[in-house]
Amino acid sequence: MFNLINTVKEKNPLVAHYTNNVTINDCANITLAIGASPLMSFSYEEVDDIVSAASSVVINIGTMNSEYIELFIKAGKSANKYNKPVILDPVGVFATKARMELTNRLLNEVKFDVVKGNISEIKFIGGFNVKGKGVDSFDDGSDATDIVKRVAQKLESIVVATGKVDIITDGKSTYKVNNGTQKLKGITGTGCMTASLIGSFMACTENKLQAATMGTLAMSLCGELSDKEDMSLGSFKVKLMDNIYTLDVGTLNKHAKVNFIS
Amino acid sequence: MFNLINTVKEKNPLVAHYTNNVTINDCANITLAIGASPLMSFSYEEVDDIVSAASSVVINIGTMNSEYIELFIKAGKSANKYNKPVILDPVGVFATKARMELTNRLLNEVKFDVVKGNISEIKFIGGFNVKGKGVDSFDDGSDATDIVKRVAQKLESIVVATGKVDIITDGKSTYKVNNGTQKLKGITGTGCMTASLIGSFMACTENKLQAATMGTLAMSLCGELSDKEDMSLGSFKVKLMDNIYTLDVGTLNKHAKVNFIS
Amino acid sequence: MFNLINTVKEKNPLVAHYTNNVTINDCANITLAIGASPLMSFSYEEVDDIVSAASSVVINIGTMNSEYIELFIKAGKSANKYNKPVILDPVGVFATKARMELTNRLLNEVKFDVVKGNISEIKFIGGFNVKGKGVDSFDDGSDATDIVKRVAQKLESIVVATGKVDIITDGKSTYKVNNGTQKLKGITGTGCMTASLIGSFMACTENKLQAATMGTLAMSLCGELSDKEDMSLGSFKVKLMDNIYTLDVGTLNKHAKVNFIS
Repeated sequence: MFNLINTVKEKNPLVAHYTNNVTINDCANITLAIGASPLMSFSYEEVDDIVSAASSVVINIGTMNSEYIELFIKAGKSANKYNKPVILDPVGVFATKARMELTNRLLNEVKFDVVKGNISEIKFIGGFNVKGKGVDSFDDGSDATDIVKRVAQKLESIVVATGKVDIITDGKSTYKVNNGTQKLKGITGTGCMTASLIGSFMACTENKLQAATMGTLAMSLCGELSDKEDMSLGSFKVKLMDNIYTLDVGTLNKHAKVNFIS
Repeated sequence: MFNLINTVKEKNPLVAHYTNNVTINDCANITLAIGASPLMSFSYEEVDDIVSAASSVVINIGTMNSEYIELFIKAGKSANKYNKPVILDPVGVFATKARMELTNRLLNEVKFDVVKGNISEIKFIGGFNVKGKGVDSFDDGSDATDIVKRVAQKLESIVVATGKVDIITDGKSTYKVNNGTQKLKGITGTGCMTASLIGSFMACTENKLQAATMGTLAMSLCGELSDKEDMSLGSFKVKLMDNIYTLDVGTLNKHAKVNFIS
Repeated sequence: MFNLINTVKEKNPLVAHYTNNVTINDCANITLAIGASPLMSFSYEEVDDIVSAASSVVINIGTMNSEYIELFIKAGKSANKYNKPVILDPVGVFATKARMELTNRLLNEVKFDVVKGNISEIKFIGGFNVKGKGVDSFDDGSDATDIVKRVAQKLESIVVATGKVDIITDGKSTYKVNNGTQKLKGITGTGCMTASLIGSFMACTENKLQAATMGTLAMSLCGELSDKEDMSLGSFKVKLMDNIYTLDVGTLNKHAKVNFIS
């Protein structure tokens, strides 16, 4: 599975993003750093041109508003039409009614290959009671594997729930990523960037569960490797991008802590 | 007052932002770095959900356009309705008629707790002749304390005027911050980020004048500490975020140059 | 020509941007770093106020959508009306029909002083067959000087085509910049930032070909100087901004590789 890091660089897939205004620059840069090509659009007119040319599509509702609802729906449907892997990042779905309704519409009208959120977002989508502040997760650290599997079964898609342990499951098989650092919550956009990384890997293998795991692992592992004792947040973000760019099979073999539960 | 830096980290307040597209990422990151939680929105639909959950609200007109005018008004009124501290950053109010009209509407329809601008913006709002280039301040270095106090009396709110010396006043009592560096004008968004910091502190004390001072001081002091002889602008911005994250009572006691004039 | 780096810092020209949401922060920061003042706007209402006050205008279609089409047209026409230098960056013009149509309208309704793109974008505008992925260039390394000159003649404007060698021509005289590094394609926005730099220099000389060359050279040279053996992408971007800020006549004299072909 780790060899997919080379496939991304060989294939240089085009990852189309319909995303938010807060972290859009970071998403573009991390897509480049992992070896793929980003394309960001807010245009109804070019959905067909872009999605048909793309290798995968990422939809992120972080700064959704009414004028983008139909755009996101159209982009998702277009991804389905052209048979492109499509990833949903339902940022802060638990925070407002508007986000909940948009997420419901997206889940009903688009067939997503991967739904990625923090553990609060995933639990909320599964119909569980959740606590969260703003768009941030409340992670009590308890094992949520069974809950996440049930959400995956309900959605009939791969679900990625990030947290102290990242859970990636299709409802049957599950990968758990034990890498990470609290500092990843100290900068904005690490969740959004994880979706970009998943999109980058999705174009490189038929094994979508492994692709989703690799994207999640890349972020958690590079975060961990970037977090030194004396590393403050500005430098941490720079180092994170550095480590994504230099991530290779050797580093993955040496440091990745991934369990597979079939 | 310096102990408020600990209160922010304990309370982790949610700071809602209705802000511009240029510096939105920096505002989110500095809010995280000081120990609060940012939430950025451009959605009419979720104003009530967001403002009612927020600890404070920041409104920044930096890339205002006609479609956001009603959004900003709605967010400000909602902050008043839910009794949440609300901060206005009238970026470049002197630069265009559209910004002037929006600022007038905001000041008339919303009761702001803090109006923060560079000295040119504050003078303009107070009805004085000002010079400025684009959205940047013209600061001739003369003592503007009396002028800023009169603006605060007129607006019946705390006014923060940033410049060589930062002036924070409610029209009666005044704090003056003598920390800072010219390099803060060399990167975009330090003014916007100051409003985010003020928003972070506003949720942590009843003493709004001190909260506004702490937010202003955090930026000016961390800027000063980040400006070493051989520090160029890219590295300066990284270091600034580093210093905001590590700012503590000890550093404030050692380096803060604040005068209080009752 | 290299002395223009000093003129920018003396004049501190105001560079108005009508640009995309992905790289808008980087464009503002690089404009500051070179010594000019950025102003970013998305507002129809303030076009006249802004363009009349600006020293130059940059129009970048990177995240164009239907609501911004008339804004870009209006900004371009206003630049012509007030006789301000205006630069077009037709990001990804070859990627979608919507971008092609907008670019056609802009080129027909506005008289641009400079059209800047990667070599694929410039060839496409000239009516040549091009390959590109997303908004990125396919550069086969062959000498495109004649092609770019023909595009400049057709457009009756200066054309800047960035690539392994950057070509800057008014259709008669040509500058070629042989500085650069592949890493500039590894971060998003280096093309957009080049347009900001060109805008900064355009306000400082009647010799528009030299201004366009200086903006292009600043990016390619500072990129080259920032690319050390062990420099990863996050650090590279920080160093790039550092080098733009410290760029001076001495560095230009020592490292610039520019040919002039009259």
